[in-house]
Amino acid sequence: MKWRDRINSHYILNIFAQWRKSVSLGNKGTYNYINSFIVLRESEPIFKYLGDMAQNENEDRAVDSGFEFEQHVDDEQKKLEQQKSTRLLEEEETSVEKVFKHLLVPSWKNQLTFRAFVVSFFLSILFSFIVMKLNLTTGIIPSLNVSAGLLGFFFVKTWTKFLEKSDLLKQPFTRQENTVIQTCVVASSGIAFSGGFGSYLFGMSEHVANQSSDTSDFKDPKLGWIIAFLFVVSFLGLFSVVPLRKIMVIDFKLTYPSGTATALLINSLHTPQGAKLAKKQVKLLGKFFSLSFLWGFFQWFYTASDGCGFQAFPSLGLKAYDNRFFFDFSALYIGVGMICPYIVNISVLLGGILSWGIMWPLIKTREGHWYKAGLGDGSLEGIQGYRVFIAIAIILGDGLYNFVKVLTHTLFSLFNQIRNKQRANALPVAHQDSSSSPELSYDDQRRKQLFLKDQIATWFAVGGYVAIAAISTATLPHIFPQLKWYYVLVIYLIAPTLAFCNAYGSGLTDWSLASTYGKLAIFTIGAWAGASHGGVLASLAACGVMMNIVSTASDLMQDFKTGYLTLASPRSMFVSQIIGTAMGCVISPCVFWIFYKAFPDLGTHKSQYPAPNAIVFRNMAILGVQGFGSLPDNCLLICYIFFGAAIGINLIKDLVGKVGRFIPLPMAMAIPFYLGPYFAIDMCVGSFILFVWEKLNKAKADAFAPAVASGLICGDGIWTLPASILAIAGIKPPICMKFLSRATNNRVDVFLGN
Amino acid sequence: MKWRDRINSHYILNIFAQWRKSVSLGNKGTYNYINSFIVLRESEPIFKYLGDMAQNENEDRAVDSGFEFEQHVDDEQKKLEQQKSTRLLEEEETSVEKVFKHLLVPSWKNQLTFRAFVVSFFLSILFSFIVMKLNLTTGIIPSLNVSAGLLGFFFVKTWTKFLEKSDLLKQPFTRQENTVIQTCVVASSGIAFSGGFGSYLFGMSEHVANQSSDTSDFKDPKLGWIIAFLFVVSFLGLFSVVPLRKIMVIDFKLTYPSGTATALLINSLHTPQGAKLAKKQVKLLGKFFSLSFLWGFFQWFYTASDGCGFQAFPSLGLKAYDNRFFFDFSALYIGVGMICPYIVNISVLLGGILSWGIMWPLIKTREGHWYKAGLGDGSLEGIQGYRVFIAIAIILGDGLYNFVKVLTHTLFSLFNQIRNKQRANALPVAHQDSSSSPELSYDDQRRKQLFLKDQIATWFAVGGYVAIAAISTATLPHIFPQLKWYYVLVIYLIAPTLAFCNAYGSGLTDWSLASTYGKLAIFTIGAWAGASHGGVLASLAACGVMMNIVSTASDLMQDFKTGYLTLASPRSMFVSQIIGTAMGCVISPCVFWIFYKAFPDLGTHKSQYPAPNAIVFRNMAILGVQGFGSLPDNCLLICYIFFGAAIGINLIKDLVGKVGRFIPLPMAMAIPFYLGPYFAIDMCVGSFILFVWEKLNKAKADAFAPAVASGLICGDGIWTLPASILAIAGIKPPICMKFLSRATNNRVDVFLGN
Repeated sequence: MKWRDRINSHYILNIFAQWRKSVSLGNKGTYNYINSFIVLRESEPIFKYLGDMAQNENEDRAVDSGFEFEQHVDDEQKKLEQQKSTRLLEEEETSVEKVFKHLLVPSWKNQLTFRAFVVSFFLSILFSFIVMKLNLTTGIIPSLNVSAGLLGFFFVKTWTKFLEKSDLLKQPFTRQENTVIQTCVVASSGIAFSGGFGSYLFGMSEHVANQSSDTSDFKDPKLGWIIAFLFVVSFLGLFSVVPLRKIMVIDFKLTYPSGTATALLINSLHTPQGAKLAKKQVKLLGKFFSLSFLWGFFQWFYTASDGCGFQAFPSLGLKAYDNRFFFDFSALYIGVGMICPYIVNISVLLGGILSWGIMWPLIKTREGHWYKAGLGDGSLEGIQGYRVFIAIAIILGDGLYNFVKVLTHTLFSLFNQIRNKQRANALPVAHQDSSSSPELSYDDQRRKQLFLKDQIATWFAVGGYVAIAAISTATLPHIFPQLKWYYVLVIYLIAPTLAFCNAYGSGLTDWSLASTYGKLAIFTIGAWAGASHGGVLASLAACGVMMNIVSTASDLMQDFKTGYLTLASPRSMFVSQIIGTAMGCVISPCVFWIFYKAFPDLGTHKSQYPAPNAIVFRNMAILGVQGFGSLPDNCLLICYIFFGAAIGINLIKDLVGKVGRFIPLPMAMAIPFYLGPYFAIDMCVGSFILFVWEKLNKAKADAFAPAVASGLICGDGIWTLPASILAIAGIKPPICMKFLSRATNNRVDVFLGN
Repeated sequence: MKWRDRINSHYILNIFAQWRKSVSLGNKGTYNYINSFIVLRESEPIFKYLGDMAQNENEDRAVDSGFEFEQHVDDEQKKLEQQKSTRLLEEEETSVEKVFKHLLVPSWKNQLTFRAFVVSFFLSILFSFIVMKLNLTTGIIPSLNVSAGLLGFFFVKTWTKFLEKSDLLKQPFTRQENTVIQTCVVASSGIAFSGGFGSYLFGMSEHVANQSSDTSDFKDPKLGWIIAFLFVVSFLGLFSVVPLRKIMVIDFKLTYPSGTATALLINSLHTPQGAKLAKKQVKLLGKFFSLSFLWGFFQWFYTASDGCGFQAFPSLGLKAYDNRFFFDFSALYIGVGMICPYIVNISVLLGGILSWGIMWPLIKTREGHWYKAGLGDGSLEGIQGYRVFIAIAIILGDGLYNFVKVLTHTLFSLFNQIRNKQRANALPVAHQDSSSSPELSYDDQRRKQLFLKDQIATWFAVGGYVAIAAISTATLPHIFPQLKWYYVLVIYLIAPTLAFCNAYGSGLTDWSLASTYGKLAIFTIGAWAGASHGGVLASLAACGVMMNIVSTASDLMQDFKTGYLTLASPRSMFVSQIIGTAMGCVISPCVFWIFYKAFPDLGTHKSQYPAPNAIVFRNMAILGVQGFGSLPDNCLLICYIFFGAAIGINLIKDLVGKVGRFIPLPMAMAIPFYLGPYFAIDMCVGSFILFVWEKLNKAKADAFAPAVASGLICGDGIWTLPASILAIAGIKPPICMKFLSRATNNRVDVFLGN
């Protein structure tokens, strides 16, 4: 999904508009902005400051005395802004590697410890559950990098502490090992997203097909073919960009904001002060994890059947509830709201108000004119059609705009880079040797040295790609007979270019366009195959192939950047990513399988798990194959308007400058068009809590809000595991909390009295 | 009610057992203990310390830095304990009056300002609502003195600040005026309790009579006769003890712990640092007031009919709910739980578990053997009989024990006082002149001087008593024909003695025995009148007469003590009490009337307002008149056991020393016997919150927990005003939040589907 990428992954860093703006300043400019923001949110200055304080006096007081601290952060920020045009990168990080100077960097094989992969395995299961739940409820997936980093640190640290005491510890816990865990978990849980369980893959099922306008072609999920499919498509992305790592990370000095942020987090965790703060954060995370888990458990008791429990609590009244305006007490989305920037939450809410508050009620008054009366709420030929297709129109409009923008930007920047390089090559030899160049700081020298130490042979990468592509081309048509081998071959010929584009683009903007490339594949392959040859399924499968390649490619490059900054070897990163991907190819389908078996109404629009993107993706595929024939009256017109509006709003955002960040995001606005605004209310509650917290004590909120949010998300997310098991075991909740209007209640009372 | 007195009024000071223990140390001993406790809870050292801190540095930090502060309090407490045997009283308070030295004390007429009574009037309405709601739900009434003091201070302060700015202020706001407000509000809202709206008076109604075993005799509440009744009985108590004020306050130096605490609070509010802390407390109070009010409002929407809403939330499961184990989300009782000491909350919970968890389910298995099958849950001849009469047995046992104990103690101490006085009289003249005695501190001198300045003539008091008694004797038989004039006359002959005993006893122990004296009247007058002459009604009315006299007598003396410590004139105290009582005689019946009209099921045992004491009092009256005839099988035996156990537990508590404070209170245990333990769970939640808060930051918890608790209590309490108005206007909530078992829910779903 396009908007997953946008809303996914890196929110701790992004305030969209302002940052997009800064992209136009080019590479360095972006870095500065992002860096000053990282500074505020997470890492070094906070830890540095805490360290200074801790030396002087009580450490607790340092965390408590918000005022002085904010002052300090403000100063820090001002300083950063003043230095914007100068070589901030080097100056800012001078101290980092000197701090770690006395520590030996383990060899790449020693970075890949057994314990790291054990921890990664369990965290992968945890995060796969969370990502799957998010996939299947709304499709909004916030960044879990921070929680993964923190939890990985916490588990291994506890484990090593325990071993230290029993004198069994062979190897201390290093930041390289921490990076390996982080990489493995992100790769593994990434499959839960790029596997399309909430989008293209589940969109193939009969369940979703029955809700679309083309029910002829479907393929129900089965554990076997899903795992096979994932194995043959998920590794290609890795091999396709491996040879380019030096160019991207060292020569182009791409930012990879999330990768950088993760690296800074890991670096700071391994300083003594950072470890102390991390301990506090983990404690808080644990607290909110338990609270959120218990809250999920408590809620369960009251959901004996559909329409029962807190998910059906008409907290804003019954009328509002009918239009899906209610607070559904979901700890998960409160946490998501705390991580997402304010503008996203507000956009989602605005979108909900616009659609469910204004447009749908208005369109409903045209029932019988614009569309046949009595079709019911779920028919695509009725009101549901407007909901789905207008949402698709916005998503495509926004996607197209940003695709063109990022691609232009990428190509332009690439062109500049290459020209500069050529110019540099034309200079005398002394200037060429960049490792001894006076421009390189101590940190950069050391990082470069270690990054270049362990090589991955180009023949290995190319050979790997060709081999896997061959296997894949042979295998895929067996899994999907509609997907001819030549479609696959064409995709694999184009894919490396697109993978490079995406890796480069996300390095610049932190913005993976994976699902946009996926949609590209849907429309092209769909049009090529045509309706008569099972184009719908072929295009959905093609989308999967494409998405997996470009998504893992940008993830890998991101990890190389992290590794570069934490002195982890590229080899260990690569191996960790491969192991993580392999884990993900097994764990994610199994997790999905649990959901699929536990909740038989998965994917229907009134279910607890509506999987909104599945129906959206399928309908896109149908559109690509069949055109606009089956849309209800005026729907196409409204779609055009919203498609144009999405592009227009983006354009305005980019043109008006700083004010742009107050303009809502079309992509975020589209999400509630289909689902209703209830989760937007949860997210705004999260925003509100964060807002009040920041007002009360900005320093504390900045240091601990991500931990609280992660706790809320993880607790509720992992509750779905026991909930699914209970559902599979046939154990149903004992009580129904029901909400009835007074009149209905009187009838029920009379009925029960008899 | 006996246990209201015990649970009422002065919890900020009481940790029962330990403190009871200290009573045996005599006057000074008690003072020391109480004082060291006050120190912890409220006042001077805290403010003194804050003052010191404020001079040195940032005041906020002083409040925040819990550790140092606790250290300080600990030291303070140690010091106090060391000085226990020496003249602590004088030393401790040396500074107080010197701080206020430069301030003029207004004349007694100037203490009685118009604005004070306007504020008192509104606060009286607020507190009458709260007390009435507590009366009608469980009968547990915590101390509202602190909230009254804080709110009174806040309102007048705001008002005077406003006037100061507009140069209209004629008279500054003094602590004497604050004391006047406090006195007036407490007197007025006291009527809401002693008027018996939740006990004897409502016990006369047909509604309650129908649930008792004697339905022959009833008198339904009417606004007219209730106001008349209250006016003729409520003022006698005031006149009966006025002449004794000098003896009690100055000569006997009685403690009146609540009065002292209130005075200390008011004194500290009027120092600059105190005012600052008070501002914070009031702010917090306001916040929780709003929260609690809004929560009440929110809950309202979901209570379309009986068995709907949060009051019916089976938070511990349906089975537990059937036995009344559930958390009912009442902010009121969470607040009450925060104010009541831990042992009270635990006792209530234990009582609930013993009765509803063990005994009633066991007795229910004997249905058909011990009592007729099929009588239903509400029949006094069935299971309800066990509930009511066992509760009565415990209440009477506990009451009897403490009556004997306090009376013995009172008489013994009185005897000692008089002997000492006689011995003092025998000494030379120089030693007699106590005002110049070197033993008296500056504070005591100044207080004594001002206390003795304004006299109230003894002839006025005696005349007043005789006149009102005459009017009352003539009037009461017209209101209650069953209550013969000679019963009333006898009561009035004995009453002054009992009033003195109660005033003296509560001065020593802070423990008003008003409802025990009331029960005494029930049994004596009931036995005298006999069943054939309407003994039930006569005895309930007699109970009212007696309770009003002894209760107001001890309240007045309490206020004299407060006035003594804040330099308020006895005359202004007396006038304020009279005005407050008059207000209460009108406000309380009106508030009750609103409840009575708004909730037609008032007093039935499944209602939102079961008024548990009404049925208890009526059944006591019936017992007194008819004996034990109508009790179900084995009930009398169990009653004897519990009567004995109540006495035994009290005896053990007193004998075992310090460990005694861990032994539950029989009186508190009896409350849930009839009602069920749901409110005990609320109260324990309050306790738990306080406990955690104290663990996290004891200093903050001590300073702000009473404010939070008061906010919760006041907000929920005052919400009953709009709720009643809505009910009277016939506006019903729109939604029913219903809880159904899965099986029932399936039936309902099928029914609604059709």
